[in-house]
Amino acid sequence: MLKRFLVPEEDRVFVSEESVRYATQAIFLEMGLSERDAEQATDVLVVSDLRGCESHGVSNMLRNYVHEYRRGELNPKPNVKTLRESAVSATWDADQALGIQVGPRAMELAIEKAGESGIGAVAIRNCGHVGMLAYYPMMAIAHDMIGFCMVSAGGALQVPVFGSEPVFGTNPIAWAAPADKHAPFVFDVATTQVAANKLMLTRRIGSKLEPGWITTLEGEPVMESVDSPDYGGFHMLPFGGTRENGGHKGYGFATIVDIMAGILSGNGPGFIAGRLHHSQFVMAIKIDSFVDVEIFKADLDKLLEKLSTMKPTKGHDRVYYAGLIEHEETALRKKEGIPYHREVVDWFNGISDELKLGFSLP
Amino acid sequence: MLKRFLVPEEDRVFVSEESVRYATQAIFLEMGLSERDAEQATDVLVVSDLRGCESHGVSNMLRNYVHEYRRGELNPKPNVKTLRESAVSATWDADQALGIQVGPRAMELAIEKAGESGIGAVAIRNCGHVGMLAYYPMMAIAHDMIGFCMVSAGGALQVPVFGSEPVFGTNPIAWAAPADKHAPFVFDVATTQVAANKLMLTRRIGSKLEPGWITTLEGEPVMESVDSPDYGGFHMLPFGGTRENGGHKGYGFATIVDIMAGILSGNGPGFIAGRLHHSQFVMAIKIDSFVDVEIFKADLDKLLEKLSTMKPTKGHDRVYYAGLIEHEETALRKKEGIPYHREVVDWFNGISDELKLGFSLP
Repeated sequence: MLKRFLVPEEDRVFVSEESVRYATQAIFLEMGLSERDAEQATDVLVVSDLRGCESHGVSNMLRNYVHEYRRGELNPKPNVKTLRESAVSATWDADQALGIQVGPRAMELAIEKAGESGIGAVAIRNCGHVGMLAYYPMMAIAHDMIGFCMVSAGGALQVPVFGSEPVFGTNPIAWAAPADKHAPFVFDVATTQVAANKLMLTRRIGSKLEPGWITTLEGEPVMESVDSPDYGGFHMLPFGGTRENGGHKGYGFATIVDIMAGILSGNGPGFIAGRLHHSQFVMAIKIDSFVDVEIFKADLDKLLEKLSTMKPTKGHDRVYYAGLIEHEETALRKKEGIPYHREVVDWFNGISDELKLGFSLP
Repeated sequence: MLKRFLVPEEDRVFVSEESVRYATQAIFLEMGLSERDAEQATDVLVVSDLRGCESHGVSNMLRNYVHEYRRGELNPKPNVKTLRESAVSATWDADQALGIQVGPRAMELAIEKAGESGIGAVAIRNCGHVGMLAYYPMMAIAHDMIGFCMVSAGGALQVPVFGSEPVFGTNPIAWAAPADKHAPFVFDVATTQVAANKLMLTRRIGSKLEPGWITTLEGEPVMESVDSPDYGGFHMLPFGGTRENGGHKGYGFATIVDIMAGILSGNGPGFIAGRLHHSQFVMAIKIDSFVDVEIFKADLDKLLEKLSTMKPTKGHDRVYYAGLIEHEETALRKKEGIPYHREVVDWFNGISDELKLGFSLP
């Protein structure tokens, strides 16, 4: 994550993984989730915070989820229905479950199918926010599989190249593969220039947006460095930004996501499905179906070794590959705790008092 | 394709699809390919030219292929071996066949497997140039499937973000899905800022490269507008360009391609496999495994309708989606012929004389 998204040092409160897990799970249980689901949803959020992906951890997301449960927009005890199923595929209706509650189960099923058939995929319609996408393909790599995941997240944020109206959400894509000696490759990006949650983080932190990240409400690219406007006061550009700089590539990948998650699941295009009905596509590919796992991992090690030990260009300390910083950050945060903004810790303690949950952070 | 890549009007010679097919096939037959393979390889090139994707049509590619056959780098009569196979997957060693000769067969097999099992994928190691990637997923959409394809194309061109050495080729990705009333979604991009072939096109055409497209041989981004240097005089940046503008996204997708095509096929990372040993991954997904084909196509129509009829931003005539221009261009070129640079037509007629092939264009 870019430095602009980090919590300023003077506002940091370090909280142990264990404490934030306890607190988060207590809140999910209070919202009506089952023990298993509360534990699962908590894990997605805490793994996100451990990896330094604060934008998708408890800070930004948990209070939104609480609001959505309270407004009845999320169903804490969903009756997830299988609409179609084969040896390699399934389509689920999530019954308006939170995405981080139902998504991991879908990836478990994809992994099970890939274990038996070589490849497994599940398309989910009708769910809430899916959290840090990296979580899902990371589940696959633990089984010597390649995993990938896409989420169609409404249609009110991202404008197509040359377009004046938003049609897509941030429509993220994540992909992961296991190595042997090196930290796994774990890639997770929005198809917009930046994740929407990160824009909100800049507001808490007081940093600026880059030129070419957002558009006016008429779709005209904002080419100056500006403060993040309020939600509803801007749209977002696909990654790449302008056409000359490859904005059509971000736009194309956003469309792929709308097709693979939104349309293939039967949820429909994001701009029709709307804010409350996200959709997800997860796939697991058994490496052994194509090549020996040992050869695969040794080859991936060679690539990751080459990337991470290469001499950097001027002004840079090091060359990273996707997932490397997050892997190192996880080790550090498991030891030292997770640095939350003090305002987030206050929120946790406020809700603990309000709902008589009996915890106090840090 | 951007205007800078088009043949200038005064240099255009229009050739009918039929004539260029005949000429190209005659050359492939002379190189030693079987009738079936010559016809197949010709189709990939001519479909590329019909779509206006000149960079991957006969102009740039055919003379390279001829050189590679003559130098013995390509095997015109390959003994393609199946190394591993399941109901949903296969791994092939292409025996140094030209990619456009073996790739379509691999996609045929993926489609056959997807027809029976729901999903089918083939990884191919040890092949030559794979041509316009869009060709492969376009094969899938004719069967009411979603198709995608990735190619690891050596490791001598693309530098990682902050990196000083090239590790990847242009490592392109293509993805396609069928609609009902609208032209299909067909997405095909290099994970570099621009396809290497397009840089060579700018040399013939005399247009400039944009800032942030290439790097020096030390990996430092060239941030001015320059003429394209010779091959060997530059490296290329991942799409996005700088880190702030999302270069890590292009870099991540390039790595995915090296994993899915290079490492999963057993070809190895591109930087080890080298210039002559490309690798490919193709996948077909049967729509009907997840949702009714009619619902899928109707939903995709709604999305494509929304995109292509939206009011454009200032200075633009129209909003396009991936594949729309190419679909329209194909209709036009099938009627009016394909506008080649006169130098390309001269080359065809030269080789016809040299090898006594008996054709004369246009």
